[in-house]
Amino acid sequence: MNRIGKQTIKLNNLPKIIQTASVVGQKEQDGNYKDSFDYVIDDGRFGESSWEKAESKMQKKAVEILLKKSGKTKEEMDLICGGDLLNQCMGTSFGIADFNIPFLGLYGACSTMAESLCIAAMTVDGGYSQNTIAVTSSHFCSSERQFRFPLEYGGQRTPTSQWTVTGSGAALVSSDDGDIAITHITPGKIVDMGIKDANNMGAAMAPSAIDTISTHFEDRNISNDYYDMIATGDLGELGHAIVKEQLENIGLDLKEKYIDCGMEIYDRITQDVHAGGSGCGCCASVFAGHIYSLLKTGKINRVLLVATGALMSTTSSFQGQSIPGVAHAVAIERV
Amino acid sequence: MNRIGKQTIKLNNLPKIIQTASVVGQKEQDGNYKDSFDYVIDDGRFGESSWEKAESKMQKKAVEILLKKSGKTKEEMDLICGGDLLNQCMGTSFGIADFNIPFLGLYGACSTMAESLCIAAMTVDGGYSQNTIAVTSSHFCSSERQFRFPLEYGGQRTPTSQWTVTGSGAALVSSDDGDIAITHITPGKIVDMGIKDANNMGAAMAPSAIDTISTHFEDRNISNDYYDMIATGDLGELGHAIVKEQLENIGLDLKEKYIDCGMEIYDRITQDVHAGGSGCGCCASVFAGHIYSLLKTGKINRVLLVATGALMSTTSSFQGQSIPGVAHAVAIERV
Repeated sequence: MNRIGKQTIKLNNLPKIIQTASVVGQKEQDGNYKDSFDYVIDDGRFGESSWEKAESKMQKKAVEILLKKSGKTKEEMDLICGGDLLNQCMGTSFGIADFNIPFLGLYGACSTMAESLCIAAMTVDGGYSQNTIAVTSSHFCSSERQFRFPLEYGGQRTPTSQWTVTGSGAALVSSDDGDIAITHITPGKIVDMGIKDANNMGAAMAPSAIDTISTHFEDRNISNDYYDMIATGDLGELGHAIVKEQLENIGLDLKEKYIDCGMEIYDRITQDVHAGGSGCGCCASVFAGHIYSLLKTGKINRVLLVATGALMSTTSSFQGQSIPGVAHAVAIERV
Repeated sequence: MNRIGKQTIKLNNLPKIIQTASVVGQKEQDGNYKDSFDYVIDDGRFGESSWEKAESKMQKKAVEILLKKSGKTKEEMDLICGGDLLNQCMGTSFGIADFNIPFLGLYGACSTMAESLCIAAMTVDGGYSQNTIAVTSSHFCSSERQFRFPLEYGGQRTPTSQWTVTGSGAALVSSDDGDIAITHITPGKIVDMGIKDANNMGAAMAPSAIDTISTHFEDRNISNDYYDMIATGDLGELGHAIVKEQLENIGLDLKEKYIDCGMEIYDRITQDVHAGGSGCGCCASVFAGHIYSLLKTGKINRVLLVATGALMSTTSSFQGQSIPGVAHAVAIERV
């Protein structure tokens, strides 16, 4: 068995992340991680007739760049795991259809990139695939239209609301040699603390992050300072503060090593995004760009990527349901 | 490596399906497979205030029955893989949240049960999990409301339209001993032949079934009569005819062994369902009930379960996009 502790999986064959690629919008390029992305789309429509089609095209572009950077062909890919926030994950279906790669569609809301890396890691570690792509995306305009208000309505955003990242990130998990490996994964449980405010996703998702991070440290029996970086996906300012405080309360003080991709991606002073960035493209593009580059250059050696998802829909909110959260953790280390 | 041929995965440790459970509506109980299901819900709302909540409750019930029948506790479950057709897969999120089992959310439209079994099989075969649940559901009323018309509108159904099955099916894939194993899986590629008629899903999904089935036979290098049953999920009458004919044309004559769960679940004479049943609950409940029972009693020994999904959304259809299909194959055999 490859299991350690309660719910962590040890990947004995150390599947490698041999390459990553990211595509983002202009607002993301104008943020803190400018120039860490591979491609910046010129306008929100990316030359398409709708935002949804633009989102699909971003995923397609991310996978194209990933293949080009890795020097591999689509025919060498055994599997592609991916998903997005749109109804029936249409961003992914239409984005990656042309590659003709066996496809496992996922839905984990904003946790999708970590979920995708978890499954990709198992498929490669177990010898079921030599090359598996993990990919996801989100788009500010398609998300606003679907989950909130028509953009033209010009709705006022609440202080705790977050800005969906326009971006796509892809990673190639491979049995090839490499120096960046996925060593452990901790797939998360659904945690629902009864939060119903769809404009406060950070608070809704924080309990699942606390659950998964604390379980991961306990299962691996590692100290607070094992990782050089613990990065949640898109909890934003409020969610990040809740996670930090609650983990401290149970003796897991992660100090400045704990960051949130949603808090970091935009310049909080010059770019008005309220509580931070969100969307499954947030964690995906920050990981594929900034974090992977820190790992490759040896500036950091051990990262725990913990993407969180809010498993609600507009229908569940209209029906008065709370917002269940889920968080998956992926330990990525230089080996 | 566990790969054979182009895209088939051989599961060397033979993960077992040690138990299944199914929950359906009255119309399904009145069909051809009456009394093969574990639980029949008394009304479409299942005592809840909405159809969506009823769908969640069906999944919860299916998992509860699965645990009870298998004599295992939820604490013994390492993973649960599942999804449904509702936006953001809310049927599953709200249905299985209370079990506190690490959760991998999937979206494969009506292919979800096969996708779920594929991933569950790899997690157990690879030693990443001892017990993984695969679960999915669909509900006629929640699907009609979301994808088609309000029920109250009383829209006329076209001859090629299908009736979404109200049902949930769950299977427990385990490293325990057992006589029913998942021996091979063939995750499918997205195939899009340009069909745009959302009332003719069978035609839209048939090409992906043809691609996956023919690839599976080629990869395994087995003869036309290897399986006692090849069961597609919900292609309905038209899709079934297309698959049968096209496979015959390439020399793969499956004869009467090829059935479609959507064509079989309802009594076509007394129950007016046009082209047949559909929805991810169709394949799931027919497999968990009728097919698993045939395997357990030794009436058949080898089944290829091929669930197909139409990866469209109402938005993609409104935007004039075609309907991409995907089909995953799972070889289930007495060992």
